[in-house]
Parts: sequence; structure tokens; C-alpha cells
Amino acid sequence: MTGQELAAASRTPTHEGVKRAMAKIADILPKTPLLPLDVDGVTIWCKAEMLQPIGSFKIRGAWHRLSDLSAQERALGVVGVSSGNHAQGVAWGARRLGIDATIVMPSNAPQMKLDATRALGAKVVLYDRATESRDAVAAGLTAQSGATLVHAFGDPWVIEGQGSAGIEIADQLKAIGLSGPDMIVSCCGGGGLASGLALACPDAEIAIVEPEGWDDIIRSLEAGEILPVEDLLHPTYCDALQTPQTYPVNFNVLRQRVSRGVSVTTDEVAAAMRVVFEKLHLVVEPGGAVALAAVLAGKLQPKGVTAVTLSGGNVDREIFVKLLAQAA
Amino acid sequence: MTGQELAAASRTPTHEGVKRAMAKIADILPKTPLLPLDVDGVTIWCKAEMLQPIGSFKIRGAWHRLSDLSAQERALGVVGVSSGNHAQGVAWGARRLGIDATIVMPSNAPQMKLDATRALGAKVVLYDRATESRDAVAAGLTAQSGATLVHAFGDPWVIEGQGSAGIEIADQLKAIGLSGPDMIVSCCGGGGLASGLALACPDAEIAIVEPEGWDDIIRSLEAGEILPVEDLLHPTYCDALQTPQTYPVNFNVLRQRVSRGVSVTTDEVAAAMRVVFEKLHLVVEPGGAVALAAVLAGKLQPKGVTAVTLSGGNVDREIFVKLLAQAA
Repeated sequence: MTGQELAAASRTPTHEGVKRAMAKIADILPKTPLLPLDVDGVTIWCKAEMLQPIGSFKIRGAWHRLSDLSAQERALGVVGVSSGNHAQGVAWGARRLGIDATIVMPSNAPQMKLDATRALGAKVVLYDRATESRDAVAAGLTAQSGATLVHAFGDPWVIEGQGSAGIEIADQLKAIGLSGPDMIVSCCGGGGLASGLALACPDAEIAIVEPEGWDDIIRSLEAGEILPVEDLLHPTYCDALQTPQTYPVNFNVLRQRVSRGVSVTTDEVAAAMRVVFEKLHLVVEPGGAVALAAVLAGKLQPKGVTAVTLSGGNVDREIFVKLLAQAA
Repeated sequence: MTGQELAAASRTPTHEGVKRAMAKIADILPKTPLLPLDVDGVTIWCKAEMLQPIGSFKIRGAWHRLSDLSAQERALGVVGVSSGNHAQGVAWGARRLGIDATIVMPSNAPQMKLDATRALGAKVVLYDRATESRDAVAAGLTAQSGATLVHAFGDPWVIEGQGSAGIEIADQLKAIGLSGPDMIVSCCGGGGLASGLALACPDAEIAIVEPEGWDDIIRSLEAGEILPVEDLLHPTYCDALQTPQTYPVNFNVLRQRVSRGVSVTTDEVAAAMRVVFEKLHLVVEPGGAVALAAVLAGKLQPKGVTAVTLSGGNVDREIFVKLLAQAA
């Protein structure tokens, strides 16, 4: 890490930071809908982040980070590392601010995410998920150009930006006369969204959901220290949640706030994607469906006014059709 | 028709009526998103009505109609005729107001629409689309019980209610600093939505889109008189738009306001459903996709700030997968 990156990572994200991010994001993006879904007679509030312009919540953190860069930093460009959604968030923000963006992406990222990132004007550098460290590739690029690293989750601005979804949820509930949320069930890859939501809603219970085989944060919380994913080749459709391990800036929030963590199977994810298709008429990608999957499978009990993240919708057509067909 | 029904059909729907409907609807339903879509460098504004609680705009007109009924009328119940979306609108509103609802539906309506209507507590009476008149079946029911007929499109309240989507579009454009809409492209079955939008936005150019073989209103506008569909067995996936012929209360508005009408093929509908899936991450049913299909196919040129209706998302999984797969 460069000194600048260490300084960024060592700043502590705060509730006030989330509120500042929210104000900036409200200037450029309408609130995404908070849609009620009846689950066995209980209303679950679904935050439809696939309706963001880039198809996921990642636009929030990227915008908070990029729009806070100085003119000098902007001139040197930015580098992102991402399986595809953060990539589009950084590319979208960079284009809007006139910043050169380079994104380090796995060579097996979904084609639509690679295409969409390039279509937003970013330069894409591919790496091999099994044999290369994306952070090392990114560090090489920033050392060369002086560009700012915009990490996908281990960055206080990114965390605060993602947390703005939690402020919106609380505001939207209030607008219809409800308090809360009492509980937020969040998908969890590196922990950027989950830690941001925890900071946004200090009174909410936070539960996290990871895909089977990629449950490193659940194991880390149990162990009390950051543990990596055991098998980086474990197959999953949840490409958005395939992070090797979390960062201290996320873990420090999550270990204070997460009450429960569960993992879900591909069948459970497919079932949730089908419910979202049939009842909400939305397209949710596998990684974006895990939170609802855990509730539908009965692995997490809702508590009071419960919100779940439907975090993104960037899924290749073939995968979507396959999972929809296999859903019970 | 009973005297009551004749009186209802003879009232002229108005812009003021649309505004009154909007006020009532705003009390119970959040605005549906108005999402930008880039089509060859031009932004098209997509009104995402599949995100209504019943999965289509039909909740609007049904609510305006049912909530205006007197206590005496409510006690006698309501009868609706519908291929499935209006059915759910009437059933949803009736349940909320404690009114008994009976819906006359074609026996070949999509299974999910039949299931959803029954799940909302309505009684469903089936008829054969090829051999029976749904209006005649409904008239028999209302004559028997004294229930109020809530027609799917030929009713001034229903027209005004559907028009509230146009008020929302104008409000949402204004909120982001745009005027308009200059043009609205509307799907068209019986003409309830299209005539409502025309009343809502008196300065907008109105274009209508029908599915191939079900272009009775286009032909009626050319002829200057109401003509029926020529072949009631013409196959189409656009079940929501299979209306035998429009009503004078709709035609009187449409013939003054519609500048262009085009029909679209199944391939064009499938292509639009795919774009909505990939770019907007929404599920749109075939009938709900025809307006965008016409723009994407180059059959209608956008003019200034152009809005299109994505009117519903109630499509059986098998049909959705089939059309998504065949989309170019």
C-alpha cells in the first residue's frame, strides 16, 4: 500500500460520514424503491438496488469516494478492483467527473459486467482469480501512475457511501409511518455494504448472508479475527460476493454490530431469484439475492420491521434463465 | 348495460378528474420509478408500472373507481372483466375497502394472473375468449346481484385513474429539471391507459402501440369509427392487450389526441423484454413491452423528452424464459 492508501484505510468511517454521503448521492440519484414482500404473512422490505443506473448499490460508495478527491488526485486517475459491480460504479463516477479510470477485473467476470464497464469508458485490466492477487495487480498500477486506489470495500468513503442505502430505508419507512428498520439483512462479500448499513442505522440489528463456500466473514466473526476464504476455486454463481477476505476497516464495524451470519446454497439463491421475479417483477443477480434467500429459507427470522438488500441485477441471461428454471 | 352503467360510461373523463385520482392514489401508493434508458444516444424515460403492488398500472383506475363508490354501492359488490391485470387491481382495491369482488376472466389467462387474483380474495368466473362475450357474462352477473361493473377500460373513473401515471411522469421529470413529457408512447389494449395519459398531459404528443393482429384501435383511428379486432383467435403473447374493441369513452379522447399508432411483432416485443432485463433489471410482460418495442425497432421516433409505458410484469416464467431466449 502507498502512504495515501494507508491513510485512507486508517480513517474510521462514521455515521456522520454516511449522512454526508447521503446528501451528495441525493443530489444525483433518486431513491431506489423499498418494496414490500409478503413472506408467510410477514412484510419484508426489499431495497431494490438493481434499479441504480449501473444496476447495483456500488454506485453509492464510488461516488462518495470520487467526488471527495482533490483536483490534483483527479488528474492522476483512479484504479478500482472489482468483479464487476464496483467496476461500473467507479467507471460511472469517473466518467461523470472526467477522471481516467482503470479497473482490475477477474478474467472470468460475467461478460455483461466486463462489457458494461468498458462501455462506461474505463480501461479494464484482467487478472486470474485463482493465481493472482487483485490487490497486488492494483498496487502495481497505482505505483506506476500515482492514481488513487478506490477499493471495492476496504475504504471508509466506500463504506459510508454504501451506507446511504440504510438512510434511505429509514427515510422511506418513516414516510409511510413506520419506524425502524429494526433489522437489516445484508448480503456480504467484503463487507462494505454491511458495515455501511450498520453505521447508517445504529439501532438496527444487522444480519449478514454469504454464499456457501465464501463464508469467510461468518467464520472470521466466530474466530474473532480475519480469516480468508479457504478455497478460492469453490464454485458459486454469486460472483459479486467472491472476496478472498475482509479488511480491518470493515471487520471493526461488523464484529461490533453483526448479530447473526448464515450462508445459503445455490438452490436457496435460485428460489429467491424466482420469488423476486414473480412477486416483485425485478431481476436480481445471484449475489444480490442471498439476503432474501436466507429469510425465505427460514435461516434468519425477521425481527420487527425488517429490510433486506436486493443489491444488484447484473446477471448474464443464460445464468438467469438456468437458475429461474431450477428454482423450486 | 344497466342505467347505472350507461350513466358511468356517459360521464366524460377530464384532466381535473385525473388530478383528483392522482391525489387519492398518492395517499396509498408511492410513485413508480421513471428510469432513463439510452436508445442510440437518446434518453427514453421508462415508467416502471410493474413495480405496483399488483404488478401493473391497473391498480390506479380500479382504486379511483372503487374508492368513489357509495356505501350502498360497496355493499352490493363489484364485478370486473379482465385478462388478469385489471382483475388484480379490482381485487386489491376491493379487499382494501371490504367489498366483495367477482372477476370475469378468460379461461386461457396466464396461470399466475388467475392465481394472483384468487389470492387477493376475489371470486373468479371463467369464460371462453373465442366463443363468449366477456361483457355479456359480466352483465349477467351485475343484473343478478346489483353489483357495480368496473370495466377494464371503458369507464371514466378507470381512465382518469390510469392517467395518474402521466401526472407522475410530469412531476418526476420536473423534479430533475426537465419539462415535458413532449411525447408519450403508450401500450394500447382497450385504450384506458392511453386515453388517461392523453388527459393527464394535454401538451404531450400521444403515440399508441398494439400487438400485431390486435391493432383494432389503430385501424379505428384510420377509419374514423370503432372497428373490432378481425380475428379473435390471432395468436399473441400480449394477453394484456387482447381486447375485442374499444369503447366510445376511450375513442373520443384517442381520436383527438393520438398522432401515430403502430403495431409490433413478437420478435420486437422479445427484443424489448431483453433490453429491459439487461439494462433496467426489470421483468416486463409482453403486453407491457410493446411501447418500448416500437421505439427500439425504429417504428416510432422519440420527440423531445419522451416517456414510454412499461405497464406490467405479470408473465409466466416459461413464457418469459422462452421470449428472453429468442430475443436477438
